[in-house]
Amino acid sequence: MSAIENLIAELAKLPGIGRKTAQRLTYHLLDDPANRAGRLAVCLEVVATGVRPCEQCGNPAEAALCDVCQDPRRDDATLCVVEDPAAVGIMERGTTFRGRYHVLGGRLSPLDGIGPEQLRIDALVRRVRAGGIREVILATNPSMEGEATSAYIQTSLAGTGVRVTRLARGLPVGGDLDYVDGATLAHAMSTRQEVG
Amino acid sequence: MSAIENLIAELAKLPGIGRKTAQRLTYHLLDDPANRAGRLAVCLEVVATGVRPCEQCGNPAEAALCDVCQDPRRDDATLCVVEDPAAVGIMERGTTFRGRYHVLGGRLSPLDGIGPEQLRIDALVRRVRAGGIREVILATNPSMEGEATSAYIQTSLAGTGVRVTRLARGLPVGGDLDYVDGATLAHAMSTRQEVG
Repeated sequence: MSAIENLIAELAKLPGIGRKTAQRLTYHLLDDPANRAGRLAVCLEVVATGVRPCEQCGNPAEAALCDVCQDPRRDDATLCVVEDPAAVGIMERGTTFRGRYHVLGGRLSPLDGIGPEQLRIDALVRRVRAGGIREVILATNPSMEGEATSAYIQTSLAGTGVRVTRLARGLPVGGDLDYVDGATLAHAMSTRQEVG
Repeated sequence: MSAIENLIAELAKLPGIGRKTAQRLTYHLLDDPANRAGRLAVCLEVVATGVRPCEQCGNPAEAALCDVCQDPRRDDATLCVVEDPAAVGIMERGTTFRGRYHVLGGRLSPLDGIGPEQLRIDALVRRVRAGGIREVILATNPSMEGEATSAYIQTSLAGTGVRVTRLARGLPVGGDLDYVDGATLAHAMSTRQEVG
């Protein structure tokens, strides 16, 4: 197989990229005077060889500890538990949270063979038992699996004396009641908040 | 900027890939136990360093000549002129054409500063004048710029005695009259073919 065919095949393995898109990307890279293919190759190589899960939280890191774990200004007493590294980025950009993270590396999904042992739940319990943490914020996805994962963690943390919270459910800000699903609406009603 | 941020930024420069998709791809690559990032890096590196335009036709090649130009079984007398390497792939997969190609490297587009000098039109005329070619098939895109490019090439080849043809315009096979645009329909009518 030729170098070009190899590149198309490799790109087509990425999620959301089919063979046609892979071809288009390949011809685009071939056509690029700025040697974008070479620069992309270097970026990938650096990530492939230099990035490993943070020893403490599981977030991708270029050293033993990730940027968040290394930052001395973050609050050690608050721990936000997320499913994957992407969620860390989402929380960092979208909220003012300044505590630490714990990345599970997925969610409980028995049908896919993902049980508690496949996630970094033991590491979380050890981290909490080591002391210094007052609150664990469960920020798994508001999906069936995410909720099950949060429920499992809640049970695992019982008896540690730590405060366990989760992100509020309710109407999306800027949304329209017409488009809110029934489960969200029912939740928003049952956890309605005082306004005056 | 971190290695991960670099990779996201580099991926987001690709056509059709925005920042969100670039993030998703990056986290997917980070999460991949099969070191897909490393393999993709190697494929890109090989393409970046080892692939250059074919000296004869302009198609990407891993040697001085591309696969088509190297193939002794192809018909030297028929030359298919296309805008870009992607079109070569489309012709190879979609037709039974067994002649040679000439890749222009784009289409005439004065507003983007692309004139005849930016395309491989001189090389095409030299190739035709060198002899051995009986027919030049113009297979530029059926767009305004593609048609203008074909018209320019037709003028450039006047006096060489070579037969110049272009791909037929008409109704798409398997299409529905309801969805055919007016220009295509008018063309299909004026170039209607005998059936019996």
